[in-house]
Formats: sequence, C-alpha cells, structure tokens
Amino acid sequence: MRLLTNKRLVIFLTLLAVYAFYSLAFGATGIEAGENESGHGASPVLDILLELIVILLAAKLGGDLFERFKAPSVLGELIFGIIIGNLHLVGFDGFEPFKHNITLEILSEIGVIILLFEVGLESTVKEMLKVGVASFMVAVFGVIAPFFLGWGVAILFIPDHSIYVHIFIGATLTATSVGITARVLKDIGKINTKEAKIILGAAVIDDILGLVILAVVTGIITAAASGSSDGISSGAVLWIIAKAVLFIVGAVVIGGFVLPRFFKFGFRLKGQGVLLSFSLLVCFLLAYLAGEVGLAPIVGAFAAGLIMEEVYYKDFTDRGEHQLEELIKPISIFLVPIFFVRMGMMVDLTTFTETKILGFAAVLTVAAILGKQVCSLAIFDKQINRFAIGLGMIPRGEVGLIFASIGAKLMYEGEPVIVASTYSAVVIMVILTTLVTPPVLMISLLRGDKKKQAAAAVSSNKK
Amino acid sequence: MRLLTNKRLVIFLTLLAVYAFYSLAFGATGIEAGENESGHGASPVLDILLELIVILLAAKLGGDLFERFKAPSVLGELIFGIIIGNLHLVGFDGFEPFKHNITLEILSEIGVIILLFEVGLESTVKEMLKVGVASFMVAVFGVIAPFFLGWGVAILFIPDHSIYVHIFIGATLTATSVGITARVLKDIGKINTKEAKIILGAAVIDDILGLVILAVVTGIITAAASGSSDGISSGAVLWIIAKAVLFIVGAVVIGGFVLPRFFKFGFRLKGQGVLLSFSLLVCFLLAYLAGEVGLAPIVGAFAAGLIMEEVYYKDFTDRGEHQLEELIKPISIFLVPIFFVRMGMMVDLTTFTETKILGFAAVLTVAAILGKQVCSLAIFDKQINRFAIGLGMIPRGEVGLIFASIGAKLMYEGEPVIVASTYSAVVIMVILTTLVTPPVLMISLLRGDKKKQAAAAVSSNKK
Repeated sequence: MRLLTNKRLVIFLTLLAVYAFYSLAFGATGIEAGENESGHGASPVLDILLELIVILLAAKLGGDLFERFKAPSVLGELIFGIIIGNLHLVGFDGFEPFKHNITLEILSEIGVIILLFEVGLESTVKEMLKVGVASFMVAVFGVIAPFFLGWGVAILFIPDHSIYVHIFIGATLTATSVGITARVLKDIGKINTKEAKIILGAAVIDDILGLVILAVVTGIITAAASGSSDGISSGAVLWIIAKAVLFIVGAVVIGGFVLPRFFKFGFRLKGQGVLLSFSLLVCFLLAYLAGEVGLAPIVGAFAAGLIMEEVYYKDFTDRGEHQLEELIKPISIFLVPIFFVRMGMMVDLTTFTETKILGFAAVLTVAAILGKQVCSLAIFDKQINRFAIGLGMIPRGEVGLIFASIGAKLMYEGEPVIVASTYSAVVIMVILTTLVTPPVLMISLLRGDKKKQAAAAVSSNKK
Repeated sequence: MRLLTNKRLVIFLTLLAVYAFYSLAFGATGIEAGENESGHGASPVLDILLELIVILLAAKLGGDLFERFKAPSVLGELIFGIIIGNLHLVGFDGFEPFKHNITLEILSEIGVIILLFEVGLESTVKEMLKVGVASFMVAVFGVIAPFFLGWGVAILFIPDHSIYVHIFIGATLTATSVGITARVLKDIGKINTKEAKIILGAAVIDDILGLVILAVVTGIITAAASGSSDGISSGAVLWIIAKAVLFIVGAVVIGGFVLPRFFKFGFRLKGQGVLLSFSLLVCFLLAYLAGEVGLAPIVGAFAAGLIMEEVYYKDFTDRGEHQLEELIKPISIFLVPIFFVRMGMMVDLTTFTETKILGFAAVLTVAAILGKQVCSLAIFDKQINRFAIGLGMIPRGEVGLIFASIGAKLMYEGEPVIVASTYSAVVIMVILTTLVTPPVLMISLLRGDKKKQAAAAVSSNKK
C-alpha cells in the first residue's frame, strides 16, 4: 500500500513537472498566444477549464493519499492546494493566475454554499430541537472555552493588533465542523453510537452558535471600521444578534409555511429536474437574503438545508425521482473541492519561516484542542464516554477556514482583520485539529469498547 | 390546463414586478448600498446568486409553459430569457447587469460544455460506425443543402456583408440538434422506431460535420482577419480540416488506449466521487485541448462524451455507484439552462422592428426547413417513412445558437461576423425550426402508423 501511495505522489509530481515544462518552454504568455492564434475568443473559458482540471486532479489525488492514512480527504485537498499555491517558491509560477481569477473565486464560494446546504440537509429542525440539553450544553461549553482561549492566545502573540483581531481569532476557534466530525465517525464505523449522536447534535448547534458569533463579530468590526470608531453601542450588537436570530427563526417559520406550497407547485410543473432546481432556488435565495441582511451567505445556505424537510418533496421521490441528497451530491463533488484546494492555494508558505507564526499556530492549535475538552464537563451520564465527546468536537475544518477567509476580506483601519500570517496560523490550526482527530477519537472509542466489554464480562460473571 | 398555464405566467410576471418594484424603489445602487452597509464583502457572489435565482426560476417556469404545449422546454428557457433580456424596453433595467457579468458567461459556457458532453455520452464510437450508409448519407445531404441554401439567402438579404459572413450563415444552418431531436422523439414515444434510429445516427454524424464546418469556417475567417486578407491558401484550409479531423480521430485512438487505464487507476483511488470527477476531468481536458488547437471547446466536450465507453468505468457501477449519466444530470440541470436563458437574454428585440430582419429570418427559416427535406432523398428503403426523416432533422436548437454566439465573438474587419440583427435572425430561425418540429413530426409519424395499419389490414384480409 505504501508503494501505491508513493505511485500516486509520483504521478501528481510528474503531471506538475510536465505542466511546468510546458509553461516554461512556451513562456508566461504561451497560453494567451495560443488562444489569440486560434481565435476562438473563448480565452476566459479556457483559463477556467485549465484551473478546474488542475484542481479536480489535485483534489482527487490528494484526497486519495490522505484517505490511505485514514485522514479525511479534505486534508489532502488542502495540502495539495498548498503545494500548487506555493510552487512559485521553486521558480514555477504557472499557477499564480489561479489565485486572482474572480470566476474561480465565485465558483469556490458557490461550492461552499452547496456544502453548507448539504450539511444543513443532514439534519432537520425537529432533530435539532430533539437533541436536547446534553447536546446544547456540550455546544455552549465548546464555544465559550475556545473563544476566550483563542482571544487570550491572540493577545499574547499579536498584542500590537486591535482588540477586534483578537476577538475574531477567538471566534475562529469556536465552530466544530459537522462535516468532518460526521465523516470521521462514519469512517471508523461509529456513526450510530450515543456518543456520535451527542457530538453531531452539539456540532449542529455549535455551527449555528459559531455562525451567530461570526455575524456578531463581523458586524461589530464593520460598524467600528465604518466611522463610529469610538465603539459600538450595545443596541447595535443586539440588533446584529437579533438580525441573525430573526433570519434563522424567520427562515424556519416562513420555510414551514412557504416550502410545502412551493414544492407542491413545483411538483405540478412539467419538465425535468424541477426538484433539484427548486431546491437550488431555496438554497440560493436564502443565501442571497442572508447576504442582504448582513449575514454570510453560507448562514442562509445552512438554514435552507435545515428547513428542507423530506416530506415537502416526498411527491417527487414517490414518483421515482432521486432523493435530494443524491441530486445535490454530484454538484458538491464538482464544486466543493474547488473551495478547499483554493483555500490551500491561498496559504503563503513564506509566512511559515517566521518562527513567531509557527509558535502562534502551535499555541492556537493547543487552545483549539483544549478548549473543546471542556465539552466533556457538560456530560453527566456515566454510561457515555465523555472523553470521546471532547475529542470528537476537535475538528474545525471548513467553518474555521470560512471564518479565516471572511476575516481576510474584512478591512479594519486599512488592513485585513486576518493578515497573511494570521491566516496561515489559522490554516495550520485547522490542518492540525483535523489531522489529530481521527487517531485520538478512534483510540478513545475503541478503548471505551474494551472497558464496556470488560464490565459486561464482570457483570455476567457475577450473575 | 389553460388556467394552470396562465397561473404560471401570472406568477412569473408577479415575481418580475416585485423585483422591478424593489429595484426601482431602492434605486440602481440599492443592492450595492446594501452590500456595503452589511460589509460581508461578498458582493460578486451575491450578484451571481441573484442571477442564478432569476435564471433558474425563468428556466423552470418557461420550460413548464412550453412543455404544456408539447414544445421542448428549451424553447421556454429561450423565450423567458428574451423577456428578461428585453425588459429595459418597458423601462426596467434591473436585469441589464446580467448581460455583462463575465462569471455568468463562463458558467453558461461550462453549461454548454456539459450539455455536449452529455449528448456525446448518449452514443458510442461503435454505434456511430454501425449506423452505416443510410445515416451518413442523410447527414451529408442534410448538411450540404442547408449550407448552400443559407449562403444563397445571405447573399440575397445582406449583400453588403463580406463572403465570410455569408458562408458563416450557411454554416449556421447545417447542424441538427441531436438533443432536441432525441427529446422530441422521446416525448412522442417514438424513440425506438427505425426512423428514430436513422435520425439519431444522422444527427450525430451531422453534429460532427457541423462542428468540422464550424472549425473550418472559423479558421478561414480568423486567418483572413489576421492580416492575410488576400485570401486563405488551400493548404491552410486543409490544415484546419486536418486539425479538426486529427483531433477527433486522435481523441478516439488515444481515448481507447488511455481511458481504460485512467479509470482503472481512478477505481483504486480512495475517496468519494472519483467516477464523476475523472469524467469531468476527461471532459474539461478535451474541451481545453480542443480550444488550444483552435477548435471550439464544445467539440472537445462532445468528443470526450463519445469516447467514454461504459465498459471503462464498469468497475464503479459494479460496486454499486451510480451510472455516469445520472451523475452528470444534476450538474446539467443546474448549468445548462443558464446557457439557454442567457442566449435568449442576448436577443435584442429592437432589431425585430426592422422589417428587413424579419424577412431575412423568415426566408432563413424556410431555407433551414427545406434544406433538411433533401435528407429524404438519401433513403431508398420504402418501408421507412422518408418524410419523417426530413422533418426530424429540422430542429437546430443549441448547435445553431452556439454557432451564432461564436460568430458574434468572431471579428472580421472591425465588426463581428454575426452582428446583432443577424444574430436575431438566427435566433428566430432556431426558435421557429424548434417550434415547428414537434407537431409536423408527430403528424407524419402518426399518419405513417395509420398507413401501416391499413396495409396490414389489407394484407391480412388477402390471407
């Protein structure tokens, strides 16, 4: 297997080398010249095609490599993205235009919108209300502790930055990635344990809490940046919170009333693909409205996924059409890796040479991991493997990266809230938390199994 | 049913009115102001989301309306696109930015690449070689006649334009839309008749002939435009033809050797969605290479679909994964309507007020229809309903629109080969040929059935 893995890396590097040779041999303007010569006038399309080819290939080869080491494939996408994005350090800048292509950026953002919609689809509003106190407490503990730990670490390591930067870094540590958590639990065959259910329930709540925090923090920083620099009133903070909560509550209430009628109407439409198109409409509309009220579009996409109840579009599946999840999947297979590979590409490896950043990243990672261990304090049922819960909450994944990318675009006093070096530290934290989870969670749950077996053996002996 | 249809139109118009009110009330800068205020910095994404919402809704409502009248839904997408694109004539210009958004244009072109890949998947290289002399003759007759008829009509109606414009218009009339043809035959339940098989076989060949003609004509015009205006050497023409043919033959040969190994390699990769990602890689790579050798990217996408044989990726479906067609479909449901609605949006209705264009469009449509009736001369088997073959070859659909859009981007002597008025005439021709086919083909085939039944009754009486 080791050999197979190496073979894949060799193929990837060979392809990179071939492309590097091609680009160098024909010069930086090689592609453009070819396009003008052929005169099909479709050069922006060809640029995107080339970028999609490189990204899809990197995503699949990177994903494969990491899955072989039992790591989530999202890690492989990130790291192959980092390789592609930093080849200019070894003299090859053929991939540099990828970073500045606005269409690629928009495609990647549609990708993450689709991903959050998919994650939202995994749970229903009812399920979320059902998970109850345990999940809610785990989520709250798991948000508060990392938030203040991250804030503290930021004060220690980058004291010269404003308080808003420190708060934003704290916010970046809050949200558990429900996608990665679920993926890891599924990979080790523990998706149906009680621990898994609490983790997933908490991760869903904690995603929303994280998104509310993101909205609040982003709102505070935006308000502070736009003139009223003497501070933000508590009324404004409440209004931001109110908008975030109102949007989600409103989406749920309106969704429950409008969606059944919307899909009943869609069911009577002739033509193919109505279920998928209408679901994309709901997703894009809520993402758009979220953006319009000042929230991140992904908040809307996630809310859209949550309020989509299977019963609304049962008519479609009853007449033999595919499940919505199956219809969304190909679109997510196509678009989601663009987000993660591109996120990796934006990592600037030169910042890694600064030991201060490496130290910051390391301590941030420790804060992220320890912060979530507080979650186990919220569990009182002794039958449950508390440590596994804390460990299962570790992965930050896409939500952390989304936070970082929003921070990188958010301006305060003429510079981005998340500067290149901080971004790199956050990405290192995401990579490490994602990397560390599978082995420790696996070990904890399997040890728990042994204890239970031993206890079962003792109790059966007593009988 | 009439009432239902009207209800849909009312809903569409109401939504348009709501959006119009919103835009007018908040002014042209309303959306931008909202974005700046909220400060999420994602304005290009929100623009695209809004455009996708409008386009998806228009596509589904328009498709439904036309399917109710037994017309292909692509017509509805076109016509609703025309409505959206021309609302500025009644004073609402909220949709004007849609026309100039480069990302939307690229998305629509990825859509048409996916569509041609899908159409290519419908047939295999083997099937194409099997359809034999009949289909080939039908295709050749059905290309030559409309080409010269279109050329002649262009000389008559726009004599002041260069010979290249006349040739291009001839080329625009050549290719039957295999998608629409198949769709119509399926809609009237005749997909498995002998006539259907000949039409489909011919449409496939005729698609390739059309694409070769497009490549040759585009190449000739590009060569003429780029300096060597004293004419193009026959060597250059041969080289263009050779490149086009070599690309397709090369794709077939290399595909037969490389693809099985590529998918065998992909089968051993861990991670989700490898089949879809690898198929998209093949599609995008051939589309990109086609663009690089001077062909249209869609030629490559179609070739990619053709060379993808099911046996190459049987391993995937054997282990329970979805068929490739099912995996591509959601992506095509999402992206393909963008192309057709956007194509409709580019139609400038003000050009329709010029009676000369209307006359040109009408005669072009007659040439397009009569040109394909020559196909029936290629059929010698009396068992076959020759007229149905000629009628089945009428629809021009997407390929005609693609030709027109390429012509609109092709510059000769400082102006596009297909100017706005000519583009409108071509779109009218496409709309009319697509509109006229379903009823006449249906009538011809059903009348054929009656004749056969009568003949069968007579012969059984004789026994």
